[in-house]
Amino acid sequence: MCYNKKSTIKYMGENGMRNFVGVDLGGTAVKIGIVREDGHLVHKISIPTNSSRGALAVIDSIGAAVKKMLADVGIDSKQIAGLGMGSPGYVDSKEGVVVYNNNLGWRNIPVVQELRKYVDVPVFINNDANAAAIGESAFGAAHSYANSVFVTLGTGVGGGVIVNNKIFEGYKSTGTELGHMKIGDKGNKCTCGRTDCWETYSSATALTRETIKKMNECPGSSMWDFAGELEAVDGRTSFECAKTGDKAAKEVVDEYILYLADGILNVSNIFGPQAVLIGGGICAQGDFLIKPLQEFMAKNKYGGALTPDIVVERATLGNNAGIFGGAALALTMLD
Amino acid sequence: MCYNKKSTIKYMGENGMRNFVGVDLGGTAVKIGIVREDGHLVHKISIPTNSSRGALAVIDSIGAAVKKMLADVGIDSKQIAGLGMGSPGYVDSKEGVVVYNNNLGWRNIPVVQELRKYVDVPVFINNDANAAAIGESAFGAAHSYANSVFVTLGTGVGGGVIVNNKIFEGYKSTGTELGHMKIGDKGNKCTCGRTDCWETYSSATALTRETIKKMNECPGSSMWDFAGELEAVDGRTSFECAKTGDKAAKEVVDEYILYLADGILNVSNIFGPQAVLIGGGICAQGDFLIKPLQEFMAKNKYGGALTPDIVVERATLGNNAGIFGGAALALTMLD
Repeated sequence: MCYNKKSTIKYMGENGMRNFVGVDLGGTAVKIGIVREDGHLVHKISIPTNSSRGALAVIDSIGAAVKKMLADVGIDSKQIAGLGMGSPGYVDSKEGVVVYNNNLGWRNIPVVQELRKYVDVPVFINNDANAAAIGESAFGAAHSYANSVFVTLGTGVGGGVIVNNKIFEGYKSTGTELGHMKIGDKGNKCTCGRTDCWETYSSATALTRETIKKMNECPGSSMWDFAGELEAVDGRTSFECAKTGDKAAKEVVDEYILYLADGILNVSNIFGPQAVLIGGGICAQGDFLIKPLQEFMAKNKYGGALTPDIVVERATLGNNAGIFGGAALALTMLD
Repeated sequence: MCYNKKSTIKYMGENGMRNFVGVDLGGTAVKIGIVREDGHLVHKISIPTNSSRGALAVIDSIGAAVKKMLADVGIDSKQIAGLGMGSPGYVDSKEGVVVYNNNLGWRNIPVVQELRKYVDVPVFINNDANAAAIGESAFGAAHSYANSVFVTLGTGVGGGVIVNNKIFEGYKSTGTELGHMKIGDKGNKCTCGRTDCWETYSSATALTRETIKKMNECPGSSMWDFAGELEAVDGRTSFECAKTGDKAAKEVVDEYILYLADGILNVSNIFGPQAVLIGGGICAQGDFLIKPLQEFMAKNKYGGALTPDIVVERATLGNNAGIFGGAALALTMLD
């Protein structure tokens, strides 16, 4: 695995191991941390994004925060082997540019060039789902597999694909938009302009939408008591009520899991990975979510027993996934 | 491009260019040819497969036919840089083994090892759709693109993906089963055991099935006159009658193209290629098929104008695609 590989470069932390800075750019906060190449999280901080200030001001804050963090923990920038940042939106990783990011309002921001003004280390940037995928590969649940797919279930469905321990990106980083794969015929509108993209079935947003729809159809469902009001419905509502035997809730969950399983099988048949990791808040459902996915995969995988098994597991890096992902970006690009 | 790359190995044909043998293993015939690295098809032959004899007898025939062909055209095996073969079924290209092939009844056949007994050159094998994809990349419609997806519409929907001029295969060659991606909700049964795989909507088989269904619903359709009888219905029936204004035929074609376009867009959003090439008999429809696909792609591509254009074109190698594909396997593995 990457993180056990002996370093061949000069920047060393304690124990002869390299340190990396990971940056997780989010809409409301930027999480920044120092990760040792053995996966130890040395230190982490968080600063507000305040995106209304514009891209360069945000990058200025990140640069200053990195410098201050290093000073606070007594690590010289010479002890940092590299910095990696995961960003939402379309990122051209080779050029180091955030091409667009609708939430932050960024267009063609040369992030790597700008960040290099603050830190004199190699800087890398990639899409946040790709960063999370390489984070799980280097430091998390996919560390035993050279080939894995990471799927994150949030506002949308994000995906990252690791091939031979590297991020697969497609031409000019345009690939692995796994959430924008048509998977059904219900006519669900997608934010991308198409209908029936996977994320219109399998995101937390989709689960909430279907939960509300079912609650309106079933005024006697315990989901009303659980949520209190429609505004409080979220990805947990149907799952928690299904566990207590609510029939309407179980119908929502069963259909949610079916489309999720079909999408996971699609990307498995397409990429031929060894493992698929599931991230995002809905993963808190644990085996209640993961076991049916594993059973579906074992039953329906193309080639059946003649092709290698594909593991389905929960991602393990949780709230620190973005920091580990950023650090892993730098680690794997430098290895 | 690969085929313009200067050779660095010793086996040269005339003009200092390398020759490769391409083998296209089919259920009824094996096509074999000699392809020069500039894409010139020097010679080709065809022998019956006679698969009932068993795998080793088929390989024996192929080996003997290659030797005889070389003797017939006066080319010494020392002038052959390599041999590549495309095979239907699941092929472990790294091991050189056809793991299974239901049509031929092959299980775990070490094809590369066996063929090497007949020809003293590097031998490579891969899935036939992968071979066709690298053939189009090296010698055909994708020659200007380092990243392309090849989709073939036949009995099923086959796919091959080229990334940086090499075949993308996934772990142990299990990836790019593009035809086995769920894409709708109609409940179409697939040979793989699932329902609603892309090939149940977009194969020639699916088109024929839907044509017959529509003809039974519409006894006045001109498709009855065109085909003569239901047994004669094929992938051309609906297209040819749609061109003459038959409404029922146009409905079949419109739905066929819609699912085909959605599948092509799915694999484009997933792999981020520069070009998608469409092969198989239905391509004879030319612009009547390709233009609506191009329009759909331009309108619906993820990222719109902010991401690079993706070209949709007809594959160009036609009946010789398998021979060129085999040759390209060897060429790209040796480069």
